[in-house]
Amino acid sequence: MGTRDVAAAMARAEPDRFGNPPLPTWLEANQDLRLATFADAAAEADVIINAVNGQASLAALAAAGEANLAGKLILDVANPLDFSAGMPPTLSVSNTDSLAEQIQRQFPAAHVVKTLNTVTAMLMVNPDLVAGGDHTIFVSGNDETAKQRTSALLAELGWRDVMDLGDLSSARATEMYLPLWLRLFGVLGTPMFSIKVER
Amino acid sequence: MGTRDVAAAMARAEPDRFGNPPLPTWLEANQDLRLATFADAAAEADVIINAVNGQASLAALAAAGEANLAGKLILDVANPLDFSAGMPPTLSVSNTDSLAEQIQRQFPAAHVVKTLNTVTAMLMVNPDLVAGGDHTIFVSGNDETAKQRTSALLAELGWRDVMDLGDLSSARATEMYLPLWLRLFGVLGTPMFSIKVER
Repeated sequence: MGTRDVAAAMARAEPDRFGNPPLPTWLEANQDLRLATFADAAAEADVIINAVNGQASLAALAAAGEANLAGKLILDVANPLDFSAGMPPTLSVSNTDSLAEQIQRQFPAAHVVKTLNTVTAMLMVNPDLVAGGDHTIFVSGNDETAKQRTSALLAELGWRDVMDLGDLSSARATEMYLPLWLRLFGVLGTPMFSIKVER
Repeated sequence: MGTRDVAAAMARAEPDRFGNPPLPTWLEANQDLRLATFADAAAEADVIINAVNGQASLAALAAAGEANLAGKLILDVANPLDFSAGMPPTLSVSNTDSLAEQIQRQFPAAHVVKTLNTVTAMLMVNPDLVAGGDHTIFVSGNDETAKQRTSALLAELGWRDVMDLGDLSSARATEMYLPLWLRLFGVLGTPMFSIKVER
């Protein structure tokens, strides 16, 4: 798991703003994970998961290093949400472009696949927590092999309804779903929901 | 049913680009409907349904006449899709504004409710055609009475899972779902689908 400053992250002693335990406590309970700089984490990685704030994604991946991303699968689960003008956030890129495409343009040798950005983190890795797992997840990307590998990883996590939306420009569609996700979050009072494409 | 030029509409003899019969043929088979100018149709109407092209909505409603809309419920089922740069279309308004809000600002005495814009026309009036009707429709609007009336109309059409997303600014969310709808349409090869919010 990459971070900007390992020492600073390990010095945290307070719960985060959601009440989660500080990182050192969490790492102690999850000893199969190690904390490293973005560059060291990416150098060792086979698959990169971009799970940082959407506004920080390009900077974090630049810190990871272009050479450490080349030829690798990047699962982009982030959303370009801009909270700077208050709630609800807007999208800092949309309609004619997407965060996923920005990442792909900045790192052309990587294989960017947009997925999982339409559900909250707990559901990403455990879809069964809602409706017995009977809901839909989307995949967008330019490289067919990278998308097949992504679909296999999603199946391992329990995703049964995986829809390939096409090339990476279709990431605009799932990123632009976020405003609806945020309104549903507000109405339902929980992020534990998802959508099923009924057809 | 309002149109710009009744005589021109009644002179149509060719099927439309989807192969549907020309308007006079359709009206002959649906004799409970009458064609009128936008203004005459709106003057007689109790509820106005904005079902014209999103790029033409403001002009069509202006032709209907502000006085003919005042105090009335406007169901806005249109989407601000811009096809001028080819497929897939973009949204001509999004993120910080919506077509529904534009309509409400232009006609402040009307009660605009955004709904039904997330499904194809046949499903709007017959949700049972997909998944036995077990999918979700959204409602956005500033006037609680207008939204309650809308929900009652939706129930009459067979909608069982109606979610009130809040004030009219939440129409941004359902309009911004359209890019995902369009991708799904491309993947599935049919507009006969809808989403269910699983929670």
